[in-house]
Order: sequence, then structure tokens, then C-alpha cells
Amino acid sequence: MSENVGVGEGESIVQKARMANRAAVKLANATTDEKNRALHRIADLVDTNRERILAANDKDVEVAAELTKAGKMSSSLLKRLKLDGAKIDEIINSVRDVAKLDDPVGKTMSAIELDTGLELFQVSCPIGVIGAIFESRPDVLVQISSLCLKTGNAVMLKGGSEAQNSNEVLFDMVSEAASAIDGIPDGWIQLLETREEVNEMLKLNEYIDLLVPRGSEQFVKYIQNNTNIMVLGHSEGVCHVYVDRDADLNMAEDVCYDAKVQYPAVCNAAETLLLDSAIASEFLPRMVERYLKAGVEVRGCAKTLNVLATDKYKVEQIKQASEEDWHTEYNDLIISIKVVDGVDEAIEHINRYGSGHTDAIITANEETALKFMRFVDSSSVMHNASTRFSDGFRYGKGAEVGISTNKVHARGPVGLEGLVIYKYLIVGKGHVVAPYTGSHAKPFTHKPLSKQFSI
Amino acid sequence: MSENVGVGEGESIVQKARMANRAAVKLANATTDEKNRALHRIADLVDTNRERILAANDKDVEVAAELTKAGKMSSSLLKRLKLDGAKIDEIINSVRDVAKLDDPVGKTMSAIELDTGLELFQVSCPIGVIGAIFESRPDVLVQISSLCLKTGNAVMLKGGSEAQNSNEVLFDMVSEAASAIDGIPDGWIQLLETREEVNEMLKLNEYIDLLVPRGSEQFVKYIQNNTNIMVLGHSEGVCHVYVDRDADLNMAEDVCYDAKVQYPAVCNAAETLLLDSAIASEFLPRMVERYLKAGVEVRGCAKTLNVLATDKYKVEQIKQASEEDWHTEYNDLIISIKVVDGVDEAIEHINRYGSGHTDAIITANEETALKFMRFVDSSSVMHNASTRFSDGFRYGKGAEVGISTNKVHARGPVGLEGLVIYKYLIVGKGHVVAPYTGSHAKPFTHKPLSKQFSI
Repeated sequence: MSENVGVGEGESIVQKARMANRAAVKLANATTDEKNRALHRIADLVDTNRERILAANDKDVEVAAELTKAGKMSSSLLKRLKLDGAKIDEIINSVRDVAKLDDPVGKTMSAIELDTGLELFQVSCPIGVIGAIFESRPDVLVQISSLCLKTGNAVMLKGGSEAQNSNEVLFDMVSEAASAIDGIPDGWIQLLETREEVNEMLKLNEYIDLLVPRGSEQFVKYIQNNTNIMVLGHSEGVCHVYVDRDADLNMAEDVCYDAKVQYPAVCNAAETLLLDSAIASEFLPRMVERYLKAGVEVRGCAKTLNVLATDKYKVEQIKQASEEDWHTEYNDLIISIKVVDGVDEAIEHINRYGSGHTDAIITANEETALKFMRFVDSSSVMHNASTRFSDGFRYGKGAEVGISTNKVHARGPVGLEGLVIYKYLIVGKGHVVAPYTGSHAKPFTHKPLSKQFSI
Repeated sequence: MSENVGVGEGESIVQKARMANRAAVKLANATTDEKNRALHRIADLVDTNRERILAANDKDVEVAAELTKAGKMSSSLLKRLKLDGAKIDEIINSVRDVAKLDDPVGKTMSAIELDTGLELFQVSCPIGVIGAIFESRPDVLVQISSLCLKTGNAVMLKGGSEAQNSNEVLFDMVSEAASAIDGIPDGWIQLLETREEVNEMLKLNEYIDLLVPRGSEQFVKYIQNNTNIMVLGHSEGVCHVYVDRDADLNMAEDVCYDAKVQYPAVCNAAETLLLDSAIASEFLPRMVERYLKAGVEVRGCAKTLNVLATDKYKVEQIKQASEEDWHTEYNDLIISIKVVDGVDEAIEHINRYGSGHTDAIITANEETALKFMRFVDSSSVMHNASTRFSDGFRYGKGAEVGISTNKVHARGPVGLEGLVIYKYLIVGKGHVVAPYTGSHAKPFTHKPLSKQFSI
């Protein structure tokens, strides 16, 4: 097939944005059944076109493999780019899973009588047009498209250029499958082709309501710094576990181990342990031993090194942590350790060096735990649990749009609710404002109603 | 008193932002009682310092009056700048009203059991640091400060420079009154002095979580275009009333009159009437007559002029509307009128030319009304009611932070809920993620809990 079929060659990014914008209002009113049927049709089409997808992906992988050989692309990037039968199964399942989720659109969030016969409803609705920018992972194109479709949002997609052939085939499939369903308007999904188009898109706040970038920390920061469209993007995860003087140390050891070792490459893995000085000498040797056995590089503060000074074997293996370490998301089997004087210093350290992502306290003291949970300014704060729980699926959201370190719109693990907003609907009987103003103003009743608005 | 007492002369804007940021975590944990006592103390202090406030305001008004005389400042601006006893009463009452509002912080929004003994709570909390930029109205300084205090947010304030003396006195009073209450940290409120500081502030996304600008359309746009901090700002209100073929024309006349004439200077007043061609010839003459009697300038489309052509008296008084008119927020006794062919054209016109603020349909046909409410993409959509109801107080929010035409975070009339977000709190018994992963993963229970988390 031609490289540009379905992509709308020659259409400017503004034209694409306009098309998406026009389609958005119609898609916002697609029924749950129409959206779900479109999702299943996407899954079906992916299923029956495996060879076409793999052929396109082969082209991408061929070029990428050369780049990897030449040292210009990491092998992990190559691995994420490459599709196979199992990955296609995953794509199909994830689309069908989205179809199973409850439709977040059209819910009555509040209903109030303003005065007799004058009723106000707050009803959830899609945001409008989402701009999604993601790394060279073809599976993400389908995932983001399904989340947008389910929530009734139009979407402009730009995937990593290394996945261009894969993305074009998958885009065509999603677009074609959805268009076959009545109620799903053409134009709701748009594919951008070049990096220049991304820069153009960042300016289109007239048409685009929310940007969802995925990828590296620097990439998300770049997007945030170059647009005034709201960005739902995770910042880095510099997560902490604080082991308090009143901790059960066996529990602490297990949580600290899980938080670092179970899957170090993710943003909810711990990067720094904070240890109460009251338990440091008892806890440090055993914890460090466990980390070293698991191949974790340990970087300690001066006090940490001091406590371990008598243990020649260990002290030789651990490094001194620098100021830089407290800020660093290693995403790797490295942990920094700091000895602090109790929960207050722990809180101070976390609010200063952390990224507001996820932090945990291990303690049997309820009062100390409550203080930690109140004063640590992070999107997820855990008591006696691993930071690794901070995740949309684990939080029961069914799907994860991302983990947001924003403090507006959506914070922490974001499910479908991050892609919806609301509108206010008023139903009257010819009510005018005049009688409710002035010195003899008619009062409002402001009485809660138990009604739903069926839109 | 010295011009800079309490303002922290010499402190850079970054230092101020850092202070606000540090204070924010403490203020977030102030109790409802502490916050309310601080609010009443602010009201008390304003009440007992009327003369000092009026003296400072006199200085501002003196300079402003000269500018007005010289034609460099509008008299309406001067009027908004000037305080008097009645306006000070209003300030005091509005602060006490905020104290009466329900505290939106610390509410359990959802509670879920993830697995036995592992519980997840979503609890509302303040956003952090709010940057508020507002016109030369000293009453707004107190209003915004009280809303931020009640919601536990630190705030950086910049009022119009014409109100500098008034703002400094009021700022000192708010700051001093609040600081006297235990639990309210110093530094939670910061005053900026120069326009350059505003431009500096727009860059501080590291410290400031939300900007709330008030003022003209251009001003809000300027802020939006020069920051990547989220802006809770209203855009213009190009509001419509569509009179459908199935409308009760007496009702339509009253609503169209109220929406335009009752208070034309506000953003929820109607700027354009859309009339179904089926009722245009019956409705136009009587509606236009009523508008003309009220001193409203009428600008009609070609069809409007055509319908009125036989009425020489009226046609002489009305102008032809230009393309420009459909985009324009007059904020004045001017209305544009367009004849459309039914609800579909009305919806299309509104989504194309409107500002997504508030739009109304007058019809007795439920189906037509539902279509209008579904497809008009505005923050408030009314059926048989005046657009003028679109307002935080009328919607029962107690206080209005602003009317947002954003489609993220908060949309439409925004009350205290626009100044809060949430954090996730997990309480476990030493739970780690490892058993919940892999091919024999332990399932999550994801069972709703009826518990509250008392933070």
C-alpha cells in the first residue's frame, strides 16, 4: 500500500486539527454500544491482518537493526519497536479490555434544583481533541486510540519515526474499523508524520484541548516547556521509602527490597531509602546485604558509611552518595540511602528532593504514619506498602492513561477519568434572571436532586 | 507605614515563590477551624481598620482621578478602584461567607480495597501555590486570598498597579490576621509589586501550580500565551439564544430580553440570537421592537433585514451584521440576530462562532432540546432558561473562583472545587507487589469500601 494512504497527504496540521475538532462533537455523542462495537472491530481487523502488520513492522525493524548495529539506537528501543505474534495478541486483548470498561461519558455527577422547575445537571463528557505523542512502540498507537475512542475524544497521534511503517498500517486499521460503525464520525483520528508537525501541533491550543506525551523525562519536559496546551505528562519518579524507628524491620526489609528490586526500570520503583537514625545500625547491615546479593549498587550518605564502617566487606562495596543522587531517578538497580533523624527530616527530604510521585513509610506507629501521609506532598503516599503499587491497573482503573505529577486536572495514576470533563445542563420553564437580582431578590432553593440526566 | 512593610522588599520573585511553596504544605494541613478563625480575623481587622484602608485607597484614587481627567483611564476603572464604606462592608461579608462554606479539603472521594488489608483512599487536598493576577479592584485581593486560605492554598498576588497603596494595606492586613492563628504558616501569601514580576512568575512552573488571572479577554489571553503553568481563566463569552420553531414565543421573548438587557456587561449575557426561519417572521418584529425600546442596537443578517423589510420604521433602525459580529462579545446593549434553518444550523453556528461559554435553546420540543444540549459544545447549555444563570453563586457554589472555558481541570462556573485536587493514600500491612505480578499473579479484589480516611 502507498505510504500515505489514509494519512491524508498534503493536509496541513491545521487542517487535520480542524477535522479532528469537527469530528469531536459527533464522537462525543456516539453511544456506548457504537464505541464498543468499533473497539471490537478494531481488534478483529488487527487479528485478521497480522501478516500485513508484521510486514510493515519488519521494514521498520530492518532499518532500526542497522541503526542498532551502528550504535545509533539502543537495543531496548529496538526490542520495544519489534512486534511479534504475542505482542499482537496483547494489542488485541487490550482493545477488547477497553471495550469492557464502564463508559465514563454521560454520567450525572450532580443534580440540583435552583428553584421550582429550574434544574441544574453536571454531566460528564469527553474533553474534545487529545494530542498524543509517544515513543517508537506501535502497540501504544492502538492503546491510546482505543482509550480516546472509548472516552469519545478525537485524537491526533504522533509516534516515534522509527515505527513509521507500523504506525501507518495500524492507524489505517483503527481508522477504517471505526469508520465502519454508524455513529463514529470520520476524521476523529489523525496521524502526524513529521517532527515538525509536532512542533506545529504544540501551538494549536485553539483546536487541541489536552496533550498526552509518553516517553522519556526530557521529552515530556520538552513538550511542557513548548506549549500552552495542558499537558497530562508524568515527570520523573524519584520515589522514597522511609523506615521509621517504630517499623517492623522484617516488613521494612521486604518492602524496601520489593520497591527497588522487583522492577527497577519503572517510575514507581524506589530510588532512595530514608532510615531513621534510631534503627539505622540494626537495619542497615541486613538491608544492604540483601541489596548487594540482588546486585543492587548502594550509595550511602556519610552516616550510612559510618554505620557500616565496622563491616569491611560491605563498606568496600558501597559508594558515597552525592547531592546529585538525592535528585536522581536511576531506573536501574541502584539505590541511595540516607540516615535521617525521624519522620520530620524524612518529610523534609522528600518534599525537597522527591518528584511528588510516590513515597512510602514503614512504621507501626499510626500517628507517625498519619503525619507522613499528611505532610508528604506526593500524588501517592503509602503506609506499610511498596511504592510499586502506584499504578492505574493496581488502583482498579482498568486502563492507565498515565501517571501524572500535575497538581491540576488529574494527579497520580490516571484512568479514563483523565480523558473526561463535564458540562452543565440547565432545564427551566422559561426562567429569567431578573427576579433573582436586586434588593428583593428571589432566593434560590439549591436543593440536591436524586435525578439523572439522560443525555 | 512604610510602603513595603510586609511585602518583603528586596526578595526576588523566586524567593517569594519558594516561601509560598514551603508554606503550602503546612497550610494544606491547617484544620477547618484554624482556617475559619483566620478568615474571621481578617474580616475583623478590615472592619477595625477602615480608615487606614480608605486613606491608602484615597492615594490611589487621587492619582487615578488625574489620569481619568487626562483621558488616560476610563471612569469605570476609576469606579472599580474606589473603595467606600459600603464596599468595605461587602469585603467583610464576603470573607465571613467564605468561612461559612464547607471545607472542600480532606474529603474521601473514593475508597477501595485492593486486597485483604490493603486499602486505597482518594482524598481531596489543596493544589499548592496559586498565582492570582487581577485588575485594579482592591476587593478582589481580599476575595482571592480568602478563597485560597479556605482551600489551603498558598497564593502569590499581583493586583493592578493603580491600586498599589490599597493592595499593600489590604495584603498586610490579611497576612497579619492569618499569621496570628496557630496552624496558618507565615509566607502562605505573597504580594508582587511590579509588572516585571508577573512575567517572572509566569516562568515559575516549578513552584506555582495554577494561575488565576482576572481581567479583560486580552489580558487573560496574554497570560495563557506566555506561560506553561495551567491557567484557570475565562475566555470571552459569546453566548447565544436559539429560538426554535416549537418555542413558546412569549417565553422566548422574555428569555431573549433577559439574556441581553438585564445586565449586558457580563460574560453570560447573550450576544447573538439565532431564530428558526419557521418562526422568524412572527417573532422578529415583536422581539426587535422590545429591544429597540430598551435601547438595544440590533444588527441583523440579510434574512433578518428581509423579514423586517415591510416595517420601514424598524428596518431603518437596524444595521446589517457582518461576519465579525458573529465572533463578537459586545458586553453592551448590542445584539446580532441571525435566521437559521432549524436546530442543526443553530448548533453548527454556535460551535463555529461561540466561545464555549453558555448557550440556550427555547423550545417545547424535548427531542430538539436534547439534541441541542448534546451537540452544543459549551460549558453550560440551557433549555428554556436565560444564559444569565451561568454563574457560580446561582449554581449554588457559594463562591465563584471564575468561569472557565477550559476543557480540563474545571469547566464553567468554578467554585472552591477548582482550587482542590486529590492525593492517593494506601494503607497496607507490609504488602509488596511481587506476588501480584507474573503468570501466577495474585488477583486484586478491587472492592469498594464505605470507609472515610480521616486525615
